[in-house]
Amino acid sequence: MVTKISRRFLLEASLGASLSAFIAGRALAGSVQALPVMHQPGIETPQQPFVYFITFDVVTEEKSALIALMKRWTNAADALMAGRAAPGLVDSEETEGLNQNDITLTFGFGPTLFSKDGKDRFGLAARRPAPLADLPRFTGDQLVAARTGGDLCVQCCADDPQTALHLARIVSRLAYGVADARWAQSGFLPSFGKGKTARNLMGFKDGTINPDIHNEKIKEQFVWAAPDDEQWMQGGSYLVARLIRVAVEHWDRMNVPFQEQTMGRQKASGAPIGGRKEFEPLSLKQMDHDGNPITAQNAHSRLAAPEENGGAQILRRAYSYENGLSVIAERWPPWRQANEFDTGLLFLAYQRDPRTGFTKIFERMAKFDMMNQFTTHIGGGLFACPGRRKGQYIGEELLS
Amino acid sequence: MVTKISRRFLLEASLGASLSAFIAGRALAGSVQALPVMHQPGIETPQQPFVYFITFDVVTEEKSALIALMKRWTNAADALMAGRAAPGLVDSEETEGLNQNDITLTFGFGPTLFSKDGKDRFGLAARRPAPLADLPRFTGDQLVAARTGGDLCVQCCADDPQTALHLARIVSRLAYGVADARWAQSGFLPSFGKGKTARNLMGFKDGTINPDIHNEKIKEQFVWAAPDDEQWMQGGSYLVARLIRVAVEHWDRMNVPFQEQTMGRQKASGAPIGGRKEFEPLSLKQMDHDGNPITAQNAHSRLAAPEENGGAQILRRAYSYENGLSVIAERWPPWRQANEFDTGLLFLAYQRDPRTGFTKIFERMAKFDMMNQFTTHIGGGLFACPGRRKGQYIGEELLS
Repeated sequence: MVTKISRRFLLEASLGASLSAFIAGRALAGSVQALPVMHQPGIETPQQPFVYFITFDVVTEEKSALIALMKRWTNAADALMAGRAAPGLVDSEETEGLNQNDITLTFGFGPTLFSKDGKDRFGLAARRPAPLADLPRFTGDQLVAARTGGDLCVQCCADDPQTALHLARIVSRLAYGVADARWAQSGFLPSFGKGKTARNLMGFKDGTINPDIHNEKIKEQFVWAAPDDEQWMQGGSYLVARLIRVAVEHWDRMNVPFQEQTMGRQKASGAPIGGRKEFEPLSLKQMDHDGNPITAQNAHSRLAAPEENGGAQILRRAYSYENGLSVIAERWPPWRQANEFDTGLLFLAYQRDPRTGFTKIFERMAKFDMMNQFTTHIGGGLFACPGRRKGQYIGEELLS
Repeated sequence: MVTKISRRFLLEASLGASLSAFIAGRALAGSVQALPVMHQPGIETPQQPFVYFITFDVVTEEKSALIALMKRWTNAADALMAGRAAPGLVDSEETEGLNQNDITLTFGFGPTLFSKDGKDRFGLAARRPAPLADLPRFTGDQLVAARTGGDLCVQCCADDPQTALHLARIVSRLAYGVADARWAQSGFLPSFGKGKTARNLMGFKDGTINPDIHNEKIKEQFVWAAPDDEQWMQGGSYLVARLIRVAVEHWDRMNVPFQEQTMGRQKASGAPIGGRKEFEPLSLKQMDHDGNPITAQNAHSRLAAPEENGGAQILRRAYSYENGLSVIAERWPPWRQANEFDTGLLFLAYQRDPRTGFTKIFERMAKFDMMNQFTTHIGGGLFACPGRRKGQYIGEELLS
């Protein structure tokens, strides 16, 4: 029988845990589960300015090849995050001289790794965690197969785009013959200065209400997998990725008061409607002289607010994206069909359970959010990003 | 009769020319041509780390609408480059708080503006400059119509991707109803430190041999339009844009000595084959013990070198690009067909005359360059980027 160690111990443990604590833990529980569990980097890590997010389809039927890949990826990630070259590869060198200190690689497993077309591909179906249930179809979804799903994902973050792509190139090289790249999206988040909320492509501050990454209790409640989740997911988190195209040309022709009503916030300051400061609570209960709410019932910020979603919270780690131009039919009048900016939000959000996180929040937003006039979900994926014990490769408890 | 002023005067004139010099010039020649001519920014400007390059098709038949657009673009560019909002537009605000000091906007006219399908659209056909002759088809060209050509282009450069895109959004908004966006490509160039040559996605230093932007004589000879070119092109330059996809996955699997032979340079230092320092002259004449050239006859750097091209030079201002993944058939064995990184070089090069510049150099490279195993030209365009006289809108001498 496996002895479970307390959640608190897991959270307090870290990569830097001393050897004696390590041995003590091992002796105490007499099993690998007693080794300190670590969260993968790139979740609670302060957001770097660039991401290259890439997904893969596993093309082998050999579980041993999948395990070997996860070992290679783990070793490469450890080396790269420590400023060294990935073992066994000749470095492609295009990042020589660039800052490599802020690198993170975060790995996840998609639902199709557990079973695909009814087939239990690697004997993992029984270990698929309940929170990794397929997302429902949301109102307005226009997900394109070529940009949706994936057996595996890797979120590569860095200080510059060349480094972020470099990491994806290494990950892809190491997957050669085992997993083929399925879809990828780069993203950026300009630095607006320490402690300032970045503006997204709609010109509004994005992320004002986000769980505090320094608050362990909040993270335990909303970000990290539940203590009664699968053992192999302890210390892990669930990632919902969505490609949300934004019709910026349509948006740019709206006047600012309309934009503010839609967002439920003021554009310049980021303050709530009727408020003065960005971090004030939303004005969800205030009424105007006619008895109507000053923050509209269908305003984006209201629909996303924890107060309106039974307290639900997710840790957003989104980036803006752009892919040049492509033809689009706008979703709402004037229904312009034109070659427009293929740009929007690479929405990445980590959570304890998507069913009580993203799905809980977004189901209502998908129906009512005024912003849906300008936004369309065109792709994405769902991934379980496990924790990791010292000395193990990522996913070892699942795959071994 | 129009009095031509000397080339030297043109080059010495600047935006900061005093009012008295300005008046003197006007009095001297008695015509608008005596106004100081300025080069557009974004050509000899030190390269900013981000670009958003966008092209447009003019959709009006009214020359007056085209003129009005060029006036709006000129006024917007002047305001933006001075750190102000574009006149007449509500700013979309997503760059609020970002550094806006390094902005440049550079405008160009494509061959199709002068005549298209045999039609002289705006009465400009007779004024099409000889250097704006259509580029020949080069060996290996696989230009995709949707990413090739354009009546107009705008090169938007900035310190961050959000600002570069912001500029393109403004340019596009101002073109509404007059010109539709045709194709666009963003690019990046990580900062490797002042005075250091940036590495491209192949991991090699790119741009070691480039005309010195501080050498007026070199620029006069190779970058700025010839004195006997069209009057409206005085102070201008011709831009050749090419989207060059690089099969980085194929490249990454080559060993470094092979890469170095292909490039004709050493990877780590950037030095020529057999040399020690990056800025040494190429080793084009040195032979090995067997009497073979140490820099191969089909090496990239040899084929691009001025010494091998009758002294031809162009001012490269290229960026790396990436657009996620797309299916490609590699051009050379192993002819892998897979979902690969859609990445490469947004090649932008300014020159006095593409016939003696890009075409002269590239015609031979397209046939013989070893690097063609990994690179494919998939799109691009040719544009005349005129100079500009103080107080005029861009292209005024052409369009008025």
